[in-house]
Amino acid sequence: MNFKTLEWRDQSLHLLDQRALPSRVRTVVCRTVAEVAEGIRNLTVRGAPAIGVAAAYGMALAPRGSSTVGGDVTSDLAHAAEILKSTRPTAVNLAWAVDRMLRLAQESTPLEIRVLRDILEREAAAIHTEDAAMCRKIGEHGAALLSEGMTVLTHCNAGALATAGIGTALGIIYTAKEQGKRLHVFVDETRPVLQGARLTMWELMQEGIDATLITDNTAASLFGAGKIDAVVVGADRIARNGDVANKIGTYNLAVLAAYHKVPFYVAAPQSTFDAGIASGAEIPIEERSATEVVEIGGVRIAPVGSRVFSPAFDVTPSEFVTAIVSDSGIRPGGRPSK
Amino acid sequence: MNFKTLEWRDQSLHLLDQRALPSRVRTVVCRTVAEVAEGIRNLTVRGAPAIGVAAAYGMALAPRGSSTVGGDVTSDLAHAAEILKSTRPTAVNLAWAVDRMLRLAQESTPLEIRVLRDILEREAAAIHTEDAAMCRKIGEHGAALLSEGMTVLTHCNAGALATAGIGTALGIIYTAKEQGKRLHVFVDETRPVLQGARLTMWELMQEGIDATLITDNTAASLFGAGKIDAVVVGADRIARNGDVANKIGTYNLAVLAAYHKVPFYVAAPQSTFDAGIASGAEIPIEERSATEVVEIGGVRIAPVGSRVFSPAFDVTPSEFVTAIVSDSGIRPGGRPSK
Repeated sequence: MNFKTLEWRDQSLHLLDQRALPSRVRTVVCRTVAEVAEGIRNLTVRGAPAIGVAAAYGMALAPRGSSTVGGDVTSDLAHAAEILKSTRPTAVNLAWAVDRMLRLAQESTPLEIRVLRDILEREAAAIHTEDAAMCRKIGEHGAALLSEGMTVLTHCNAGALATAGIGTALGIIYTAKEQGKRLHVFVDETRPVLQGARLTMWELMQEGIDATLITDNTAASLFGAGKIDAVVVGADRIARNGDVANKIGTYNLAVLAAYHKVPFYVAAPQSTFDAGIASGAEIPIEERSATEVVEIGGVRIAPVGSRVFSPAFDVTPSEFVTAIVSDSGIRPGGRPSK
Repeated sequence: MNFKTLEWRDQSLHLLDQRALPSRVRTVVCRTVAEVAEGIRNLTVRGAPAIGVAAAYGMALAPRGSSTVGGDVTSDLAHAAEILKSTRPTAVNLAWAVDRMLRLAQESTPLEIRVLRDILEREAAAIHTEDAAMCRKIGEHGAALLSEGMTVLTHCNAGALATAGIGTALGIIYTAKEQGKRLHVFVDETRPVLQGARLTMWELMQEGIDATLITDNTAASLFGAGKIDAVVVGADRIARNGDVANKIGTYNLAVLAAYHKVPFYVAAPQSTFDAGIASGAEIPIEERSATEVVEIGGVRIAPVGSRVFSPAFDVTPSEFVTAIVSDSGIRPGGRPSK
């Protein structure tokens, strides 16, 4: 990749500011738990795997303020876990990473604070490295599903910007390209936050992938014209029955893909699977501010006083999913193959 | 209505500037054919019926420059017709109105120029009045399809702002409200030009209709949750077999409605039916500038150099249409009733 989504340097978390892309490439430095939490909440960093890694580094920053051994550190860590988990409710990777850090800290204390910090820092770095490795594996498994000359539709950003590696859905595309397959990618702009237009287009262009931007409204007519060979998206949480929570608009594509008999692939690391919930109905769906809908870049596009409904995610029932590509392989979804 | 979409006054066409809504309510005055054509092309006025009426007034302005009787007027009119028809290719009402004006002028010449002007002005006013009456009739026929407490989804703007009357799709909603039915309306923002967010929300709020704005990506999850009872949209052109060209994203809603067994209604005056074409495949689809996708209100939202595909319309095959509501009544669409 020609950029770093997140980087741990000088005991600080450096986040590529995704709110500023594609106009400006700038970095936000987080030195405290509160700064990391704010970076997750305000979308400086986003994407389920990436916010998991960011939160892990946030936990590594938790004992920073603690000057004593024992009790205070424990409560600092519990407090940090609470703050970080409260930032965004839908992606499960965040809670997964925070809990892993917390468990390690609990098993490690009482320890000298400096030693505990080192342990946590190394664990966050391990989660970071594992995430990059998971992306690679997803890419390898998934690339087998794409063949020369295919046109792929993607939604939102499940790319390098959403992970600590080459991405999940886009990781598959990058890997297929490395294997010499020429692909064309249609990119849904992905309202309201425009992750497709701002982020996916940016990173695909950085990586030299042949990509065309469309409004979300345009996808259906491309399906109708037989121009889409496969849909590849990421996921924020996957239930035991295979239901998938992902960026709002994903279910729309799943219905279109099923109707037009186009395969619908979900790419996500194992940490996205939530064994604790039976079906998508139990996944909490974050509702975001109306401002994201009625203003774009500070420009007002709807009347003052407009009522808005803006869920950030939707749930795609398993019956629409052709297959889920994870780091452990390809698992068939619940969509009938005929 | 609390506003006038277009008004003929002092031998000029006054257009409510729909590019400035909802931030500013201002009027653009067109005194020449070229100014009317530009107003249609740059979306000062839009909506298939409204651009038909605007083009009729444009034709009434054609003989203005002609100072002689006979030959020059004929060529002025032919030239005006050509300019006006070339502004936007998809809506058939435009060509229909221009041809009607041209035919009348051809039957009327040679005449004193002043008399010809009066005749054309009266004919444009007649088209204007007929359009308002057609909206009323569409409203009356269509309101029978909506019952107390229903939640209706609409796309783009097929309202008073798209016609010279109360609108087509929204005319049905206004009429149902007049009949005492309480409805709730979800409004697709309708990228790229945001006619839903900017225009439909504005006019529904002006008229006291209970409305909620959503991004186009959100509709599918509302269908999935069983929250949509009916879809009502307008049309830009309807082929002999009942295929419907309308704003990009309409076909998307048609697939969602069919899949979720929600009725899908199209509202359009008779002038939208094009007897000259057999199916939607023959309808020319306008592609608009990439700028509408990569910039919103002057704010850039995609990387410089992004390739964009931006058709302004899509075609919904008749098999997805439950019924077409026109001024002459309700005609069943091709969607199987089961």
